[in-house]
Amino acid sequence: MRLLQLLALVSTLIYAHAFVPQHLTQTPRPAAAGRPSQSASQTASPASSQSPSPLPSPSPTPIPLPPPSVNIENYRTPAGRIIGAALTSDKAYARLAHLTDHIGHRLSGSKSLERAIEWAIAEMKSDGLDNVRAEKVLVPHWVRGEESLEMITPVPRKLTMLGLGNSVATPAEGIAAEAVVVRSFDELDALGERVRGKIVVYNVPFTNYGATVRYRSSGASRAARYGAVAALVRSITPVSLQTPHTGAMIYDEQQPKIPTAAITIEGSELLQRMHDRGERPTLRLKMEARFLPDAESANVVAEIKGSEKPDEVVLVGGHFDSWDVGQGAHDDGGGCIMAWEALRLLKELGLRPRRTIRVVLYTNEENGLRGGNAYRDAHRAELSKHILAIESDSGVYRPQGFGLAATAPPQARANLQEIARLLAGIDADRIAENGGGADIGPIMREGVVGASFNVDGSRYFDIHHTAADTLDKIDPKNLALCVATMAVVAYTVADMPQPLSGSTTAGK
Amino acid sequence: MRLLQLLALVSTLIYAHAFVPQHLTQTPRPAAAGRPSQSASQTASPASSQSPSPLPSPSPTPIPLPPPSVNIENYRTPAGRIIGAALTSDKAYARLAHLTDHIGHRLSGSKSLERAIEWAIAEMKSDGLDNVRAEKVLVPHWVRGEESLEMITPVPRKLTMLGLGNSVATPAEGIAAEAVVVRSFDELDALGERVRGKIVVYNVPFTNYGATVRYRSSGASRAARYGAVAALVRSITPVSLQTPHTGAMIYDEQQPKIPTAAITIEGSELLQRMHDRGERPTLRLKMEARFLPDAESANVVAEIKGSEKPDEVVLVGGHFDSWDVGQGAHDDGGGCIMAWEALRLLKELGLRPRRTIRVVLYTNEENGLRGGNAYRDAHRAELSKHILAIESDSGVYRPQGFGLAATAPPQARANLQEIARLLAGIDADRIAENGGGADIGPIMREGVVGASFNVDGSRYFDIHHTAADTLDKIDPKNLALCVATMAVVAYTVADMPQPLSGSTTAGK
Repeated sequence: MRLLQLLALVSTLIYAHAFVPQHLTQTPRPAAAGRPSQSASQTASPASSQSPSPLPSPSPTPIPLPPPSVNIENYRTPAGRIIGAALTSDKAYARLAHLTDHIGHRLSGSKSLERAIEWAIAEMKSDGLDNVRAEKVLVPHWVRGEESLEMITPVPRKLTMLGLGNSVATPAEGIAAEAVVVRSFDELDALGERVRGKIVVYNVPFTNYGATVRYRSSGASRAARYGAVAALVRSITPVSLQTPHTGAMIYDEQQPKIPTAAITIEGSELLQRMHDRGERPTLRLKMEARFLPDAESANVVAEIKGSEKPDEVVLVGGHFDSWDVGQGAHDDGGGCIMAWEALRLLKELGLRPRRTIRVVLYTNEENGLRGGNAYRDAHRAELSKHILAIESDSGVYRPQGFGLAATAPPQARANLQEIARLLAGIDADRIAENGGGADIGPIMREGVVGASFNVDGSRYFDIHHTAADTLDKIDPKNLALCVATMAVVAYTVADMPQPLSGSTTAGK
Repeated sequence: MRLLQLLALVSTLIYAHAFVPQHLTQTPRPAAAGRPSQSASQTASPASSQSPSPLPSPSPTPIPLPPPSVNIENYRTPAGRIIGAALTSDKAYARLAHLTDHIGHRLSGSKSLERAIEWAIAEMKSDGLDNVRAEKVLVPHWVRGEESLEMITPVPRKLTMLGLGNSVATPAEGIAAEAVVVRSFDELDALGERVRGKIVVYNVPFTNYGATVRYRSSGASRAARYGAVAALVRSITPVSLQTPHTGAMIYDEQQPKIPTAAITIEGSELLQRMHDRGERPTLRLKMEARFLPDAESANVVAEIKGSEKPDEVVLVGGHFDSWDVGQGAHDDGGGCIMAWEALRLLKELGLRPRRTIRVVLYTNEENGLRGGNAYRDAHRAELSKHILAIESDSGVYRPQGFGLAATAPPQARANLQEIARLLAGIDADRIAENGGGADIGPIMREGVVGASFNVDGSRYFDIHHTAADTLDKIDPKNLALCVATMAVVAYTVADMPQPLSGSTTAGK
């Protein structure tokens, strides 16, 4: 049942930043900068009463775990060396600074993503990692082009917006139509054909990412079904300083494709107020968004080859692409650098584990997931030897530990909980009851045990997919702690004499 | 001594949002949304160690106050009626919604400020207020025009910016030069002539408004003195989501006038990192900013005429102009509506006090202070009959009480503290030891007792002078509490048999 729910989730949101680790589905903190006051119009939202939980509920009676089959006393010394080295190195931050400040954002198909890949390959070789390679992947090449949104009546005014990834363009002259504001799909369905010829505005306050992102991913087609000519979505965030958040949307091939964009909380609330006052605002949306031919890209792969069981693999990684705004610092430059640096640090310390540790910087997570799918296809033959796959894609805030897939064998959970005790001194020793990731989703569905790298995500959606996802938001100390956390777990899982899950084949 | 310090402050910052109520000069809360991590580069700022205090320090031995000469028992009933009426009315919020949603931002010289003035006059007449009038004021008409900032090297990149009010333009092709980043005027002075031909970037982290705004107001001329060709200032704010904050600057007439703009915390930190790494970033700044001929504007004035001493005046108000971004909701549409609504509510309740209560919606506070000066000039003959002048210009957050000018007579302080007890039930009964306001500064210098309307200012500078100063940031409940607080104090001061300060002439 849990697996079925998980599969349903993953396939529903496949392009839309599919896997939301459980620690990111909490309702936001009560007060935040730039956060609009909890005015009557906002607290009255029906959305909060119908938020679905995209992940399985906590099991009422936890399954008792077997005793761990790893002796962590043997790993205190290497763990101490790893943590000490991570916390005294500025290498990860310097590399993330190069990636963000000098290469910048990295949407699939962009020159900057190409540059990032070339740079990483060269640097990984200079680090002395094993089997450094670019595994070619054809990726979609969506470009935003010029775009704008303005109110025509009752008051001419520019509105801040960002087109949604995968959206089609408007005609050159734009689409001008009345805006109809709804607070939920239920409100849309109740209006039905009355939205024909109109621009549907989804003003859905953020509760948690999983519950709210549905409006971004499927709002356009849901509105098109009733004849709407465009769809605008309140940005998926608890706070705003006129801050639009982009992200992927997916068209339902059964419906007409209508252009769609994110607007700010401020713009969405303005339209709501006008709508509530019966002012029937009209808008003009212009977008040049389009797909160019698929582009050549690559997953970046490198290893520390295992000393005794080199064909068994512990996989770590994040996605190297980003949206075309900001610097892709937290999402997911930091996740990539963290995983890569874990390997570099082990190499520097001369810590070669029994099994292979492999880092993958996946391409095209944001708007296609071609990287994650390509990894599965290219490595299908060795997936049964993948002991554990860890994905870091929640930002590089204070690390908390890992979210192990609910489907993982009890022996794997018992061992990971035991290994995490090595991280108690840096307070990163929590193993959450579920986890995974968009890029490792394809191999998890093939039976690989997956885990998310968990951090304090309370600020992540403030900057997620915005121009404000920049290096200044990253605390170098947190990045160093993330590196330490990732490296200790990857090393210990790769080196422990017994396999993590109690047998040499991973999975259930 | 205190008065001299106050005068020195007011004349120094005269255009630059001169008077910072003491409750707004606190250092910011430790954590805030979008706030960059306290990375080493930021905490290393020398600015925090040299923040001047723009206001007199608390007196070490407070002067004992005389007994109050007002009997508040006589005012419990009207205060109760006022508070009850304010908290059950949506009139203030509806008017603020019209001002912000339908009229929008209101820079001096703009059509929208003209429309706002015409609307207020008509509405005040329909409210039945006395002596409703527009008192003409010629105002400067600065326009922003097109503007942009881009990095040329080491990485081509657009940088988010907002030109500073009063700035001159660049040549049409822009100004392209190397950026030199400093963290203080001391660092600038140490560089001296080495900034010749360069663009000076002031990357000064927010401590409090008074300490940091100096870089915005005088940074350009301080840099021009050493031959700099333009100046960029980190936005005066503790938080950012790529959010530029505009505001006024003042040229030193002794120095060449160089164009100047605000950049975001993100942009400023990017330039700092590049500077620290020796990368010598070069930038191109383009601005069309210019002054058009002075425009006709007006202070909006209306009254509840006093029943016994109509020539004695209690003055309340805020400034009706705003910067040319956002909606001017907190700054200072809310302050205007609060003061205006206080009069309307008294009128509706049939509460006509012994003295006159006058509301003034000043024009041109943001970039000229012509409204405040014009009020002084037009009303010079009756200033000695001004019992108290209250200005609300800190946003309409949760009200705390009032900041009475440190120079106010002890009898006025004793009475205001006593009257404030009527507000204890809504927790707005604090009388701070100092206060005032930019628009009432001119009449305070003529001896009128002044006070600021004080609110919880902890979020104000998140949105101050930005596109995010919009109605959604205003809690209607707080606005209603502000109205109640203002109306109770204005009514009681205007009605008490004894004059507030113990004599019929106001002042020190």
